[in-house]
Amino acid sequence: MRNIVDHVRLSADETKLVILDQRRLPLHREYLVLATKERMYDAIKSLAVRGAPAIGIFAGFAMYVLAQRMPEARPEFDAQFRETADYLNSSRPTAVNLSWALRRMVRVVESDPTSPAAALLPRLRDEAQAILDEDIAMCRAISEHGLSLLRDGDGILTHCNAGPIATSRYGTAIGPMILGAQQGRKFRVFSDETRPLLQGARLTSWELMNAGIDVTLICDNMASIVMKNGWVQYCFTGCDRVAANGDTANKIGTSGVAILAKHYGIPFYILGPSSTVDLNTPTGADIVIEERDPNEIREKWYAEPMAPEGVKCYNPAFDVTDHELISGIITEKGICRPPYTESLKKLFE
Amino acid sequence: MRNIVDHVRLSADETKLVILDQRRLPLHREYLVLATKERMYDAIKSLAVRGAPAIGIFAGFAMYVLAQRMPEARPEFDAQFRETADYLNSSRPTAVNLSWALRRMVRVVESDPTSPAAALLPRLRDEAQAILDEDIAMCRAISEHGLSLLRDGDGILTHCNAGPIATSRYGTAIGPMILGAQQGRKFRVFSDETRPLLQGARLTSWELMNAGIDVTLICDNMASIVMKNGWVQYCFTGCDRVAANGDTANKIGTSGVAILAKHYGIPFYILGPSSTVDLNTPTGADIVIEERDPNEIREKWYAEPMAPEGVKCYNPAFDVTDHELISGIITEKGICRPPYTESLKKLFE
Repeated sequence: MRNIVDHVRLSADETKLVILDQRRLPLHREYLVLATKERMYDAIKSLAVRGAPAIGIFAGFAMYVLAQRMPEARPEFDAQFRETADYLNSSRPTAVNLSWALRRMVRVVESDPTSPAAALLPRLRDEAQAILDEDIAMCRAISEHGLSLLRDGDGILTHCNAGPIATSRYGTAIGPMILGAQQGRKFRVFSDETRPLLQGARLTSWELMNAGIDVTLICDNMASIVMKNGWVQYCFTGCDRVAANGDTANKIGTSGVAILAKHYGIPFYILGPSSTVDLNTPTGADIVIEERDPNEIREKWYAEPMAPEGVKCYNPAFDVTDHELISGIITEKGICRPPYTESLKKLFE
Repeated sequence: MRNIVDHVRLSADETKLVILDQRRLPLHREYLVLATKERMYDAIKSLAVRGAPAIGIFAGFAMYVLAQRMPEARPEFDAQFRETADYLNSSRPTAVNLSWALRRMVRVVESDPTSPAAALLPRLRDEAQAILDEDIAMCRAISEHGLSLLRDGDGILTHCNAGPIATSRYGTAIGPMILGAQQGRKFRVFSDETRPLLQGARLTSWELMNAGIDVTLICDNMASIVMKNGWVQYCFTGCDRVAANGDTANKIGTSGVAILAKHYGIPFYILGPSSTVDLNTPTGADIVIEERDPNEIREKWYAEPMAPEGVKCYNPAFDVTDHELISGIITEKGICRPPYTESLKKLFE
């Protein structure tokens, strides 16, 4: 029996790709039916499909769908197949799974340069299915490893979305809690909303609520106070590319979470399939960081709620910055320097 | 000649308070005319007026306006005056300037328990004007002290809004750059958008653009990458309350900025009037943190842009987390520990 997931799948006649439009969640459960490479490119670029493993699964099935409409004759088929793979690969530069999955599909074609193109189609379909099957097994294994760290009652902070819809099942960063919940374990998860596109608000908190897990949505800048309050025992995030030295590219803001976690003495873990580890990238400095449309910051405002109805939120208006972090306090009377217990008192003498 | 500022002022007949509605900026320049204590309370609570010093100025003029409609007879006048001050004071618990300004107004009444109430009115007006005049002088002095640290070309990161409309003139945290710009100095400012209410996007970037200063708007979770890129030489933020040991309450997320700054070796300064220093509060642990409506996180989405048209943005999709910050990397093969150059390679052996 073949594994099927609802959010990235073939149409019944297998000539199209059907995906859950993640941009419309949590309010609208809408599917896109994709038949052309241009619409597939746009689906990745615009984040209708997102999450490094899900993009890999998408790319596998996409190449199978597109191959059905390529010229029968070889090497014309091969040339167009490679060109299409390169085209899809250019949709997002940072994630390694996209190019990894596309390379797997290209290798199927290259491994048999002589058979008629039609004979390759079942093998391309099998390879795409294998990418999905392997991801399900991987997510399950990752979730088990992550779960081995957790004790009941632990608070876990996560950033962006590395849940089931970003992968195949379970997810990576929130997989341990989803697997744990299935086993009756109890955790408390803090979900960074993750500006600008709010994957944490729209997707992670929705997935965790669906799984019956206690989730509290916070703005990104509230991670510090939540950690300071003692509510977080672990930080779990996904990854888009891990360099050979461990430097990890992930959703903007992840490095900030890690710095806060270090400051508060909270362990910070990266969870992802080993396909995300890129030994050809020596360090993080070698990773290209995608820059996106400024209007995501300026203009992406909707007239409707962007988080699941009734999701629990923590909304402190202020936080306290420890005096040890402050270089100086500048009042109209000049610049106070540490130790402040002395210098602030002098302000009033 | 009396100082007048546009955003918190008396009506021409002095029977009402006129304020710029900060919630409608930057798209709409609308004023509220307030005559009752309930509407004044709401104006503070709902952030129509905001910024600790501006709230203090507001409170002074508010008490003068409200005193005009209180009973002539004393001690009825005194009782109602005190009661009204307590009522306004309960609108926001964290900022110290509100209670400080209200106390100044109450002291005017208490210092003369016998004169007819009508005789107190000019003195109340003078006290409110003094709060404004002193704030202008303070902001100017704070700006000069802050400016003394900066060199041309420096990048300054700021969080929330501590500009002219949060104070009287110049502002505190962005006062140095505004004063410097008037003197022909050149700086580059990074403005955190400051979720949930986006004071950085709506107000700070708007004020800096108005002042002709190079400003780049970022989401809160982008502060880490901007610092890592080497673009920030100083962090300047305002403050709502400074404890005797220097622990500082300010807009949610400020402590995170300070931790990032420490990590990257960037000096982090607090700028504010000495009235914000509260020697009666020994440490930050003694500061009550206001919790606000969860719908600010869940539902405050508008169908219109929330930043000034054309504001420059930096919108990286990812950042890189240094391997030294990562406790473990969990793949389907188990948990890799440092040194990652070894443990990641073993994944593929």
